[in-house]
Amino acid sequence: MGVNYSISKEVREVIYADNAATTRLDIESFEAMKPFLLDDYSNPSQPYTFSRKAKKALVEARKTIADCIGADPEEIFFTSCGTESDNWAIKNGSLNGDILTSQIEHHAILNSCRKMESEGKKVGYIPVNSLGIVDLEWLEKNISSSTALISVMFANNEIGTIQPVKEIANIVHKHGCIFHTDAVQAVGHIDINVKEMGIDMLSASAHKFNGPKGIGFLYVKKGLSISSFIDGGSQENGLRAGTENVASIVGMATALRNNIDNISENTEKIEKMSQKLIDGLIANKLDFIRNGATERAPGNISLSFNNFSGEMILHRLDLMGICVSTGSACDGNSNAVSHVLEAIKLDKKYAEGTIRISLGKDNSEEDIEKIISGISKIVHR
Amino acid sequence: MGVNYSISKEVREVIYADNAATTRLDIESFEAMKPFLLDDYSNPSQPYTFSRKAKKALVEARKTIADCIGADPEEIFFTSCGTESDNWAIKNGSLNGDILTSQIEHHAILNSCRKMESEGKKVGYIPVNSLGIVDLEWLEKNISSSTALISVMFANNEIGTIQPVKEIANIVHKHGCIFHTDAVQAVGHIDINVKEMGIDMLSASAHKFNGPKGIGFLYVKKGLSISSFIDGGSQENGLRAGTENVASIVGMATALRNNIDNISENTEKIEKMSQKLIDGLIANKLDFIRNGATERAPGNISLSFNNFSGEMILHRLDLMGICVSTGSACDGNSNAVSHVLEAIKLDKKYAEGTIRISLGKDNSEEDIEKIISGISKIVHR
Repeated sequence: MGVNYSISKEVREVIYADNAATTRLDIESFEAMKPFLLDDYSNPSQPYTFSRKAKKALVEARKTIADCIGADPEEIFFTSCGTESDNWAIKNGSLNGDILTSQIEHHAILNSCRKMESEGKKVGYIPVNSLGIVDLEWLEKNISSSTALISVMFANNEIGTIQPVKEIANIVHKHGCIFHTDAVQAVGHIDINVKEMGIDMLSASAHKFNGPKGIGFLYVKKGLSISSFIDGGSQENGLRAGTENVASIVGMATALRNNIDNISENTEKIEKMSQKLIDGLIANKLDFIRNGATERAPGNISLSFNNFSGEMILHRLDLMGICVSTGSACDGNSNAVSHVLEAIKLDKKYAEGTIRISLGKDNSEEDIEKIISGISKIVHR
Repeated sequence: MGVNYSISKEVREVIYADNAATTRLDIESFEAMKPFLLDDYSNPSQPYTFSRKAKKALVEARKTIADCIGADPEEIFFTSCGTESDNWAIKNGSLNGDILTSQIEHHAILNSCRKMESEGKKVGYIPVNSLGIVDLEWLEKNISSSTALISVMFANNEIGTIQPVKEIANIVHKHGCIFHTDAVQAVGHIDINVKEMGIDMLSASAHKFNGPKGIGFLYVKKGLSISSFIDGGSQENGLRAGTENVASIVGMATALRNNIDNISENTEKIEKMSQKLIDGLIANKLDFIRNGATERAPGNISLSFNNFSGEMILHRLDLMGICVSTGSACDGNSNAVSHVLEAIKLDKKYAEGTIRISLGKDNSEEDIEKIISGISKIVHR
């Protein structure tokens, strides 16, 4: 059963440079999902023969995903999205103590932490430097005997900064605490080995690595105690109830495997395009700052233009068929300078002129030329 | 872009009679999902033109679903499954008081209630009679000034019994409490009008009404206070964060619309097949009890055979290519007599010989003949 896969003309004409918001579904991922949407639709919890394919697919998907991050299959728990994974990790009922997190986390972490604060838990917010890197000395000083969990994102969604994950893990473990990382922007794009890096819990979302929307996972290190977040049937070892979303789980595993298998060439291609973009803007003598550390999530290009409105740039680029973002994609209703740009203390006259371009493996050199030309037209006036 | 849709030979040969566990995806639902899996993949939270189709699709899906249950669109909140909807309703942080629920709820409700008990909330369990109908006098007597929420399922997943929802709602509201119903087995199969029935909150799951797995919704009556369950971005009016699963939401709305548009003829067809099945087993002089009330979820046929093992019957039917269930599909690991059969006080020598046949709109008269013949061969010995 084949599909005539063709990109519609309309979509071909869009220059999609918002891959940190969501990514195009890998066509092999779609093909892998199809049998479980159509023919093999049984509930994998059922004991009859018809459920075997679905059951086997879950086992294989769990193994694939575990392999991709250096975990064991029984350490992978399927969730409905990265946000659910983050909520689960932060609201973990087994957690006996306070939380430290960074000032520049995604709202999935920050708002979960706020919920915990409203329930009486103490949460400390680790400051970052101007590049968005967490202050390790602050962390070292502020972990106390009442601290239980430290949650620091792997790569920031707005400015791309990759945190010194291994060093954070070392500090955390020295104090006998648990280390969670929101790796939604990293998984599938950056080599991750949870064991080597000392990660105890990790959140990921399929649609950020060319998988389908509505599916994600939480890695939980063996032996670590975590309470169920969604209670009901005995799925996911009794820790996350609800009939398994078999098709999307298979789609997630296929997309992740493909991204990881091609991670070097994808990264190289994306980094080359990123450099070309920056070089082009510099050559056109635009007055801008590129935010974030040198170690960034591939393709994440946060640019702040002097004395401009990021929203205006976004809308004018949209008129040219170019999709970029202002702040975080996940909080599209807010127009204020984001908490991330505030935390890195970006000069306000630049901060308000911030756009995030996020390139992906599907972008082309031609896209970059059009983006450079588009931005230059808008910003030159 | 068309799909060559054909049922594989293997699947054609299976007689699927486990529609209470999950249902076959409506092909129109699949077709409606496809554009949002492939072409229109943007994140609907983003403000550019490319997101318009996804955004519009969410608005339309919400309206369709609301229409199907007599609600307003702003009362529909998308979730990842019925279990999540149930957890959200029960664990609602805005709830200031105790909970009453029935003894025969799905584990999604029961285990959520147990979690609340472990956190200090009081939960009372309404008994049921031998048909599985909740004891309204008990309810009336046991609602106290400290009761806040009454959660009673619309139709039971194991024995199909439909509860007197309107009468329950009246009692609940007389005492100023909130009425939630787990309608996972009912939505798309039984006419529901939340306003007329006095339902304040309702849980549903797409894959039970020929939609995709991994998507559901919670209806929350306007003005009713409910805390967010998954915190993060501002999706779902700030109450359920996470990038919207656009394709599955559209698939859910399409499947529900189709089921509701054909509800009379589907019900008639299914009821006719159910009667034929019962008549056939009686004609073959088998010693069995049909569980549940006369008012049942269409196609739900819980049969208890004297001095047999339900599990054995299930496996022998499986060898004939017939898929049925023992107890609840969602707890496939447990072999004990279910809490539902215990609550209706079914004689143990029958209880252990229980299977659940659940027919759907795709079943045929021929399926019924094969099921009658199959069961009769096994049970006659």
